[in-house]
Amino acid sequence: MEEPVLKPYVIGLDLGGTNSVFGIVDSRGDIKTTTAIKTQVYDKVEDYVDASVEALQPIIDQVGGIGKIKSMGIGAPNGNFYTGTIEFAPNLKWGHNGIVPLASMFSEKLGVPVALTNDANAAALGEMTYGAARGMKNFIEITLGTGVGSGIVINGQLVYGCDGFAGELGHVIMVRGENARPCGCGRKGCLEAYCSATGVARTAREMLEKTKRPSLLRDLDPEKITSLDVSIAAGKGDELAKEIFDFTGKMLGEACADFAAFSSPEAFIFFGGLTKAGDLLMDPLKKAYDANVLNIFKGKAKFLLSSLDGSSAAVLGASAVGWDL
Amino acid sequence: MEEPVLKPYVIGLDLGGTNSVFGIVDSRGDIKTTTAIKTQVYDKVEDYVDASVEALQPIIDQVGGIGKIKSMGIGAPNGNFYTGTIEFAPNLKWGHNGIVPLASMFSEKLGVPVALTNDANAAALGEMTYGAARGMKNFIEITLGTGVGSGIVINGQLVYGCDGFAGELGHVIMVRGENARPCGCGRKGCLEAYCSATGVARTAREMLEKTKRPSLLRDLDPEKITSLDVSIAAGKGDELAKEIFDFTGKMLGEACADFAAFSSPEAFIFFGGLTKAGDLLMDPLKKAYDANVLNIFKGKAKFLLSSLDGSSAAVLGASAVGWDL
Repeated sequence: MEEPVLKPYVIGLDLGGTNSVFGIVDSRGDIKTTTAIKTQVYDKVEDYVDASVEALQPIIDQVGGIGKIKSMGIGAPNGNFYTGTIEFAPNLKWGHNGIVPLASMFSEKLGVPVALTNDANAAALGEMTYGAARGMKNFIEITLGTGVGSGIVINGQLVYGCDGFAGELGHVIMVRGENARPCGCGRKGCLEAYCSATGVARTAREMLEKTKRPSLLRDLDPEKITSLDVSIAAGKGDELAKEIFDFTGKMLGEACADFAAFSSPEAFIFFGGLTKAGDLLMDPLKKAYDANVLNIFKGKAKFLLSSLDGSSAAVLGASAVGWDL
Repeated sequence: MEEPVLKPYVIGLDLGGTNSVFGIVDSRGDIKTTTAIKTQVYDKVEDYVDASVEALQPIIDQVGGIGKIKSMGIGAPNGNFYTGTIEFAPNLKWGHNGIVPLASMFSEKLGVPVALTNDANAAALGEMTYGAARGMKNFIEITLGTGVGSGIVINGQLVYGCDGFAGELGHVIMVRGENARPCGCGRKGCLEAYCSATGVARTAREMLEKTKRPSLLRDLDPEKITSLDVSIAAGKGDELAKEIFDFTGKMLGEACADFAAFSSPEAFIFFGGLTKAGDLLMDPLKKAYDANVLNIFKGKAKFLLSSLDGSSAAVLGASAVGWDL
């Protein structure tokens, strides 16, 4: 009688513009071992994949060889789950001007199934598999980093849409008309232009320019202010800094009220650097949500911070894509 | 050997504020026979259900008796699919101040399974079962009537959310701030306040007031102008009437661009009285969509008019809820 082959691990790859971090993860979300390479030193994707496999080999051996690996999951910018490709990713030297079949390339080299999705979707899957969304069938993960991303789960499934690119809630339009802020996507008034870390820094610069009010932020070079500076100043009781978070939280709350009209989620879960601001952000967010959401949805959705550890969350999220295979 | 009992029909009930229309429908969407009662002459829901069953009996007999009926589907205002209840429906005498377990009441009387959902969701299911969305797994049905409703299909399933009430796209906020129009829901600036039939009539009144420009609409009592009047005037080449549809279509297109960021649907399908305006509405809608949608979604979604016959669509939609049981 043949014994079933036990494959207790999945490889997770958090593919970022600067670093590519690999982890071997078990089904409880324990990262057994990790390695990393620089993403940008390779001009050709073939060289990137070869270097990745070379870096992976020792950690694969460490857990007992490739026979112990069920699959690999990749979280990557502009990743398309349906096709396993990275499409026109502006920040990847070997991926900015075309469609790269990264999942099949890794699968061929490693001999295991490989799935790929974008980073915010990976975060949502990670949250559902190991984090604050365990047991939830309907929730929206919102990532507040350099940009604003999202992963939407409905009926227990990630929403990919007709093309694999659904869930771009950072790019709903929150401000229309001439005065709307330009967004990195080339349009104007997107949620991301206001509520990302860079959006918060820009709000700070605008508020400092517009008024003469005193603020700890005036000690800093305006061009170099970051959302962390604003967070620190607000923590010290700086009124202007608090108002910056009030403005940011209010807009996020208004946006979430619209998202509720779409999918009526059980929870909104926030992930990423900006969430370190805690109640400074979440209090005005919840207040604006309550003031703006349709009556029938009032008091239903929870507002949670991600329970995934920041440094390992992206690798865990990527590995969750692999468990689904 | 026992023969399988063939149950080729479903009862569909389009439960409206004024009329309740029943149809017996086969799997191809042919309505075999219909009947109707007045919704509002009953003070108690028990009497409404009794009168319904009495009206149904002859048409059930006509198709061969209750043994031929697989199930019943109901499309109703404020209908909750999860619970089979109608919850605080403002326009129903016997349903405005509580939770009515209508599905179980009908099921008990008729002895067949009964499911219930709101009217826009029923329209989406009808479209998927018999109409323009056959074969589609991801689309958004937008109903443009007295209000603006929606039924969202993702991965081949209707989106109900955590509470059964998801898909209220008529209530995303399109205009923020003091000048936003009040909406029937008690808030301000909702899509429905502008892009429903009543919204179009209000836009007409506002435009007539604000300018002195000549228009065929000036021959009408402003308080009695309907969206149909605007449509007729625009059809005759009236410039002001055309601008009213430009304004309406533009806002719908902007809203759809945001919806694409959510679920990246294969198609937007429009249903209801306002769609009779045809290209007067759809041309500015598509133009605004293209101008506002995120680059990666450009050119992907189709814009379709419902292919369900207006008079029977609601009954077909309701019956589709039953087929799913």
